[in-house]
Amino acid sequence: MTTGLSTAQLIEKHRPARDRALEAIRSREFWSPHPEHPKAYGEGGSLSAEAGQAAFDALRGTRFALDDQPGADGEWTATESSPYGLELGISYPHMDADVLLPAMRAAMPAWRAAGPEVRAAVCLEILSRISARTHEFAHAVMHTSGQAFMMAFQAGGPHAQDRGMEAVVYAYEEQTRTPESASWSKPQGKRDPLDLSKRFTAVGRGVSLLVGCNTFPTWNGYPGFFASLATGNPVLVKPHPRAVLPLALTVRIAREVLAESGFDPNLVALAAEREGEGLAKELALRPEVRIIDYTGSTAFGDWLEANALQARVFTEKAGVNTVVIDSTDDYKGMLANLAFSLSLYSGQMCTTPQNLLIPRGGISTDAGEKSYDEVVADLATAVSKLLGDDARANALLGAIVNPQVRERIESAPSLGEVALPSRAVEHPDFPDATVRTPVIVKLESAKPDAEAVYLSECFGPVSFAVAVDSTADAVSLLRGTIRDKGAMTVGAYTTSPDAERLIEDACLDECAQLSLNLTGGVYVNQTAAFSDFHGSGGNPAANAALCDGAFVSDRFRTVEVRRPA
Amino acid sequence: MTTGLSTAQLIEKHRPARDRALEAIRSREFWSPHPEHPKAYGEGGSLSAEAGQAAFDALRGTRFALDDQPGADGEWTATESSPYGLELGISYPHMDADVLLPAMRAAMPAWRAAGPEVRAAVCLEILSRISARTHEFAHAVMHTSGQAFMMAFQAGGPHAQDRGMEAVVYAYEEQTRTPESASWSKPQGKRDPLDLSKRFTAVGRGVSLLVGCNTFPTWNGYPGFFASLATGNPVLVKPHPRAVLPLALTVRIAREVLAESGFDPNLVALAAEREGEGLAKELALRPEVRIIDYTGSTAFGDWLEANALQARVFTEKAGVNTVVIDSTDDYKGMLANLAFSLSLYSGQMCTTPQNLLIPRGGISTDAGEKSYDEVVADLATAVSKLLGDDARANALLGAIVNPQVRERIESAPSLGEVALPSRAVEHPDFPDATVRTPVIVKLESAKPDAEAVYLSECFGPVSFAVAVDSTADAVSLLRGTIRDKGAMTVGAYTTSPDAERLIEDACLDECAQLSLNLTGGVYVNQTAAFSDFHGSGGNPAANAALCDGAFVSDRFRTVEVRRPA
Repeated sequence: MTTGLSTAQLIEKHRPARDRALEAIRSREFWSPHPEHPKAYGEGGSLSAEAGQAAFDALRGTRFALDDQPGADGEWTATESSPYGLELGISYPHMDADVLLPAMRAAMPAWRAAGPEVRAAVCLEILSRISARTHEFAHAVMHTSGQAFMMAFQAGGPHAQDRGMEAVVYAYEEQTRTPESASWSKPQGKRDPLDLSKRFTAVGRGVSLLVGCNTFPTWNGYPGFFASLATGNPVLVKPHPRAVLPLALTVRIAREVLAESGFDPNLVALAAEREGEGLAKELALRPEVRIIDYTGSTAFGDWLEANALQARVFTEKAGVNTVVIDSTDDYKGMLANLAFSLSLYSGQMCTTPQNLLIPRGGISTDAGEKSYDEVVADLATAVSKLLGDDARANALLGAIVNPQVRERIESAPSLGEVALPSRAVEHPDFPDATVRTPVIVKLESAKPDAEAVYLSECFGPVSFAVAVDSTADAVSLLRGTIRDKGAMTVGAYTTSPDAERLIEDACLDECAQLSLNLTGGVYVNQTAAFSDFHGSGGNPAANAALCDGAFVSDRFRTVEVRRPA
Repeated sequence: MTTGLSTAQLIEKHRPARDRALEAIRSREFWSPHPEHPKAYGEGGSLSAEAGQAAFDALRGTRFALDDQPGADGEWTATESSPYGLELGISYPHMDADVLLPAMRAAMPAWRAAGPEVRAAVCLEILSRISARTHEFAHAVMHTSGQAFMMAFQAGGPHAQDRGMEAVVYAYEEQTRTPESASWSKPQGKRDPLDLSKRFTAVGRGVSLLVGCNTFPTWNGYPGFFASLATGNPVLVKPHPRAVLPLALTVRIAREVLAESGFDPNLVALAAEREGEGLAKELALRPEVRIIDYTGSTAFGDWLEANALQARVFTEKAGVNTVVIDSTDDYKGMLANLAFSLSLYSGQMCTTPQNLLIPRGGISTDAGEKSYDEVVADLATAVSKLLGDDARANALLGAIVNPQVRERIESAPSLGEVALPSRAVEHPDFPDATVRTPVIVKLESAKPDAEAVYLSECFGPVSFAVAVDSTADAVSLLRGTIRDKGAMTVGAYTTSPDAERLIEDACLDECAQLSLNLTGGVYVNQTAAFSDFHGSGGNPAANAALCDGAFVSDRFRTVEVRRPA
């Protein structure tokens, strides 16, 4: 498939979506051009479920060649293993950075000269090609992240594509705030004015390194990928060794579109690493690398921020997400909503609540006063009911992504009184998959040994029902948790305007995104592109938000050339 | 003087200038609301030269009290000495950061709640109060930086105020890109849509530390000061110990306006340091400090970037500015323009050219072929003529800011053949002022010992006429210099389209601001707010530009609160 389109035609083709997306980020109203439902991609055609499955199957057990990418050193790496136990057997070319990085830098001048409008159009064409292969990506994301199919489809497909498009239009808008040229005429009283003619060019910083993550390779990867590419930077993609395929497909598609549009395909390249190579650390310190996007552990994120001083580093790290439970006028809705949030993808989201702060004296609800023990027991029941049916449990939970998460579930009972034990769920199609329901542990906020437990991120389906003195106590704990540990999300339930103001003030003071009284089909762990900010960038969980001006504005610089008019 | 204006009235008062400034940064056409000519401030009135002189004189030999600023520890510091030898004798209160910083943080919530429009209006009111005292500031800048009066008046007054206003409107625009609230409704097929109501609040990061510089306390200080204040951050001003007064006046005015407008004056505070205290280093690592603006040495700028990891650090450091001389169709204009650039403020600007690259075989001009030796000799003559009259020399040169610069001038003859020796100029009003004309030294580009000389920043009125093989050789040297040493400015003279393209490409590739063929009344070392970018932020001389989206966008974060509609 080739576009056969000139860059002018690409601009025409994508202008309506670009302008609509620009409108959406200004209004923050709902919008998405990428269909969420698998059936929307038709039956039998090239976009269909069947075609996607076939394309994915054809990749298994093969070498994923990127023939024209320079610097292949002859080695092939195969580091993936599906959390579902499916044999992937895909190997990727290993590269020599000393050859690849100079080739990437050499691609910059023509990409810079193309200007922001052409770059945006090429990026949107890449996204539309990715969108056409959403079913194939769904399998790739499912079998690397362990997400259930529907989630892999939606979060790894349309939602990730939305986030990518959002970054493209933020980048476009930022670069076009300054005009391409200007006439400057300064009056000099009776003398002739001083006249200059000025040209302004958006110039990329240099090679942008994307360090991918295991759980959301496309959703967390696309914002940085497209923000950097759209602002004139070559992007080197270093996927997580367990989630290479979704980003390798992305790289291949991007290289195809770039070449077809007349640009050097080396503007996008793959750096697959061998087992235990520590390639991200090596690449992050290369002088050619001037931008880094990273999602993962706090330890490595902090290391990047402290050591990759030649680069602008955007990090999303660990955090401890809190839900304050003060009161509710929809007890059933609250329990159902929380049960879903704790269960989705087995809590393996950076946005999943970990600490549920509940007053020891209980809470007021539309179903009467509920004691701390009752709230915890009712929540445990809600989770058990939600996941009582194995088919539904599998569809919601997905698979445990790695042995460390499984170990955390297994050792959770040692942390405190178990309110809800985890159970293993059989997967009908993938008997080797590790599928586990969430565990809820009761803790006392004031006990020092408990504090050490709930104030550490326990990534995976382990949450803590923390008994607190009062809502005021909960808010104080919330503040300290955000300040010291960071938070991608905060949730709260209250019918009291006073409590609501306390919680809001805490989130404004400590810079965390707050979801209030969610009882329906929106969950604290989900954000929508073009409307919601993912993270705030203002607490230790992340130094940037997806997506805002700051996420794109420092990826390029504006070079001015002025001369007498 | 009090405004007696409500915040709504302040918004009304400053809306026309705000909107005009927003238009200017979009069009990059000439605009300034701050009169450049001293006479524009009237005679006899409160804005007049006489009033400014009297106000400045009244400050001398006194304690500069900031009575209501918390944390004064009882000590008074007096570290200034006028480069003109005028006795200043002003002492400033020393503060206890453990008291002051918490008081500043406590001022944040109300300032945040005011919103971006009120914050912009209050900032513009501060600027208009500063503007009304431009004559007073001119003396303060003159007697701390050593700038001649007219330059201190313009660069320290209207031009600095322009840069401050530019930062205010960039900050305003950036914060208002996201609406205050939004309704989000996601269709669910046949079911009811998911409806959320969302509120977005711009939230400052925390205390912003301004580390001032000696040579341009207001011009280099105002962008960061106003960008941070306008985005909701308290600003702690730590002036250079030799240039406290201009920023102390700024702090006092800001505190007055804040208090009159109903805000906590502790949103702006002064941290004057005692001799040799190293206060910037101490404050930079305080956890309350989340933003740092710094202008000064590369060594301390690099230290801040590597160590103040809790803060977003904006630095302007040293660089080596180059002018490539290939050819010209206005030889006389070129020489006059360069002579002025080298002389202005005795070359003590971060934007003054240092290395003049001239082909060994000479250049083509409208006055015939000129050999390397002729070009250098003619430039030396042009400088000598420009500064031949002592009154004009004093008006242009100002005073040498510190003994280190004087030593550099004195040791310049040891670096190579002197094409133009420096001479001492008597100042009729200030016999103790150190006034020196520039020195030009001839160097051979290829000689290793020469390379070590011209590839180091030699801050002050010392420039190098570097003989190169060819224009291509000059461009290659230009590239390496920008990449390795950084550059705030690049100049070039050429009539050849090929040479022009080579030079432009080098500046685009290495990210430096280029001025071509300046032969009239615009100089490579000057930039105009609302139109020119000061620095690129993309080479080692600075990690940010004044002023663009990136300079403001990461000083605040957007916190979202969403709830069912």
